[in-house]
Amino acid sequence: MNASIKKYAAEFIGTLVLVLFGCGSAATAGGELGYLGIALAFGLSIVAMAYVIGPISGCHINPAVSLAMLISRKLTVTDFVGYVASQIAGAIAGSAILYAIVVSAGMPMTGLGQNGFGPGYGIGIPLLMAVIVEIILTFVFIYTILGVTSTASNGNVTGLVIGLTLAFVHILGIALTGTSVNPARSLGPALLLGGQALSQVWVFLIAPLAGSALAVAVYRWLNSHKGEKA
Amino acid sequence: MNASIKKYAAEFIGTLVLVLFGCGSAATAGGELGYLGIALAFGLSIVAMAYVIGPISGCHINPAVSLAMLISRKLTVTDFVGYVASQIAGAIAGSAILYAIVVSAGMPMTGLGQNGFGPGYGIGIPLLMAVIVEIILTFVFIYTILGVTSTASNGNVTGLVIGLTLAFVHILGIALTGTSVNPARSLGPALLLGGQALSQVWVFLIAPLAGSALAVAVYRWLNSHKGEKA
Amino acid sequence: MNASIKKYAAEFIGTLVLVLFGCGSAATAGGELGYLGIALAFGLSIVAMAYVIGPISGCHINPAVSLAMLISRKLTVTDFVGYVASQIAGAIAGSAILYAIVVSAGMPMTGLGQNGFGPGYGIGIPLLMAVIVEIILTFVFIYTILGVTSTASNGNVTGLVIGLTLAFVHILGIALTGTSVNPARSLGPALLLGGQALSQVWVFLIAPLAGSALAVAVYRWLNSHKGEKA
Amino acid sequence: MNASIKKYAAEFIGTLVLVLFGCGSAATAGGELGYLGIALAFGLSIVAMAYVIGPISGCHINPAVSLAMLISRKLTVTDFVGYVASQIAGAIAGSAILYAIVVSAGMPMTGLGQNGFGPGYGIGIPLLMAVIVEIILTFVFIYTILGVTSTASNGNVTGLVIGLTLAFVHILGIALTGTSVNPARSLGPALLLGGQALSQVWVFLIAPLAGSALAVAVYRWLNSHKGEKA
Repeated sequence: MNASIKKYAAEFIGTLVLVLFGCGSAATAGGELGYLGIALAFGLSIVAMAYVIGPISGCHINPAVSLAMLISRKLTVTDFVGYVASQIAGAIAGSAILYAIVVSAGMPMTGLGQNGFGPGYGIGIPLLMAVIVEIILTFVFIYTILGVTSTASNGNVTGLVIGLTLAFVHILGIALTGTSVNPARSLGPALLLGGQALSQVWVFLIAPLAGSALAVAVYRWLNSHKGEKA
Repeated sequence: MNASIKKYAAEFIGTLVLVLFGCGSAATAGGELGYLGIALAFGLSIVAMAYVIGPISGCHINPAVSLAMLISRKLTVTDFVGYVASQIAGAIAGSAILYAIVVSAGMPMTGLGQNGFGPGYGIGIPLLMAVIVEIILTFVFIYTILGVTSTASNGNVTGLVIGLTLAFVHILGIALTGTSVNPARSLGPALLLGGQALSQVWVFLIAPLAGSALAVAVYRWLNSHKGEKA
Repeated sequence: MNASIKKYAAEFIGTLVLVLFGCGSAATAGGELGYLGIALAFGLSIVAMAYVIGPISGCHINPAVSLAMLISRKLTVTDFVGYVASQIAGAIAGSAILYAIVVSAGMPMTGLGQNGFGPGYGIGIPLLMAVIVEIILTFVFIYTILGVTSTASNGNVTGLVIGLTLAFVHILGIALTGTSVNPARSLGPALLLGGQALSQVWVFLIAPLAGSALAVAVYRWLNSHKGEKA
Repeated sequence: MNASIKKYAAEFIGTLVLVLFGCGSAATAGGELGYLGIALAFGLSIVAMAYVIGPISGCHINPAVSLAMLISRKLTVTDFVGYVASQIAGAIAGSAILYAIVVSAGMPMTGLGQNGFGPGYGIGIPLLMAVIVEIILTFVFIYTILGVTSTASNGNVTGLVIGLTLAFVHILGIALTGTSVNPARSLGPALLLGGQALSQVWVFLIAPLAGSALAVAVYRWLNSHKGEKA
């Protein structure tokens, strides 16, 4: 029980950091940072958190990652629920801190790093393409996680590789959907902003989970031979 | 047979990811990312894919890499043909997804991250210089791959080093030829765009293969003494 | 005694490098580098110094890090005083060299990479928010340090992870407070500039130390179970 | 003898790559890359080359590095001469290829990534400050190299750390002197450009060597205690 609480607390902190720093970079200094800077803000949140909360909870900080671990039977249903609830709480807390920062500075509330699609968001891809893009982005992210964590020899670079892969999917995805690949990361800003961010958020709840399930399926089929050997 | 299909499927997926994310970053957000962001999109595709399809197929995702492995007798002729066919298919698939993204957003089809040379492309180097540049860029990329993969002690940083080296050759090459170093990566966008991209693509089929062969030759001569010791 | 002097000299050199290169990048080429470039200047100072002065002094180069080590009983009170004095001296020396560079170039003395808040600094967050932001930024930085240094298996990537984490907290923090997380780094430029930098510097002396203490407390509670196992 | 020729050939190739890619990025696409992109072009040349020519020659590709190894008695006087001659030849070859690229594109010959100081170069620091800056930049670079290569446990990240450190000293130095820290890298462009680049080049021959000697002296004094233990 105590160990579970610590795991959930770790997921709360980690997701708070991911959302506050990732979305916060986009919202407060997106122009100065450029897409690459924003991508690295998201990616380096994994690098930082993996080496400190990784040993506690595995540093999922993303319901799509927890789903992949649930399907792969590396996470119990109880812990899956606890993880996801903690991640959503952390994302809301991170968004709330970001909201307070923006308000305190007297900046116009133009955004909190929310995801989106359609006219006026990024290059303006339509709904169906946003779903496809998020499935692909999440597939790449989760498939890489499954690969890099399967081999003990990757050891101490695992956090670096996963973090750089999260930056990687942001480099392409920021102009398209803002890159969710993480339902908690999308829900936080949407709940605080309301409006279009909230009305579109269902895409970013469903598509990343679909991409995650796809990644597990492909991994099982494609990487199984190697697994049998090991 | 089954193992071969998995290898080819892995090369298909990996090359699709490299082309979709690398060329896609250039085509949809090149201005916001800058040359460094585009270079890292290509480079990080290797970082992500190396740790998940590397154990299956070696993560060549590039006919020039497969040629180097063929010449080095680390790949059979049958697998070379299967790898290259899979890479080309993956590159076309990645380009097609990118094409659909651009069209769906109603963006003008100004490019798909195609390679090129001459007036109006980059700084405008002529044909002969484009050939020389691609040979040099590919030489550096393949020569580094041969070095870093030759020593087991490089272990878990191998994917990082190769990915950063691909980013490295893009940093210089984007302004010159857009950086191919990979015939499949060039063929995909050229087939979908036609026009100048297609009429110039032969340079990016031949020069990277020549650079790869040169890298193997130099590696054999220069790095052999060390090999004899080991 | 001799060993202590070497440790203090190492901390002096390391903090001088951090301040000269980090603050210097912001002061002499901030526009050309962008926020990401400045963030990496600070972060890579750790990467460089960790691998050469790390074996001597642990490469704290930051009183907030030394405080965390003092509370964790990995640093004696005597050494804490010696470390902090050396760090402050190094920061002043680094700022002085930077001052000389700016003056020698005939540039207007618009800044030395000083931290700040309020109207005219970054996005203009008020005092209370600046305190909160610095506590959060420092918490993330120190908490990650405690995690990554606790496991011998992180071995040779420790310096990379800590450096990338310092870059990470700068990516968000530059627009807010300029990112201190390091009282010595703030004190150096403030003493040379005077004015608002000096009148506000107390925030950047106190908040990072509070964030550091918070990180140790959270680490003790959250990461202790794992510690018991080991 | 044969082994020596291979070492010299490796140094020739490595320095050619460093100059062609580093100076070439600045000369052909400096505006698009920004200072950070140029810094990474120089830094990643080390990452690429270290893992392939490192096992042959140690991948100095810089007379200041070879001097440090000579003083540290890790390089014979004969090899020092051979290394430096090969590095200079490689730098001239790299500059010549870059010259041909620029000319072939019909670009105005505004520069080849040359170093400099004074009015019209960077922020315009005077001669004396340029000497001081180059001594400091080279000290940091060489001191880090001495540290990271002294411990076998740094193993496979050594090339990454040295490359990132070279990028680090460029982040600060580009605006000041263009960052030499490498007499060969400065001599190549200066010989091809002539004019001010050539008349100022003596600074970039002498100051990096002085910074290197300083780094060895500080390393001997400060890091010796640890060495005695090992």
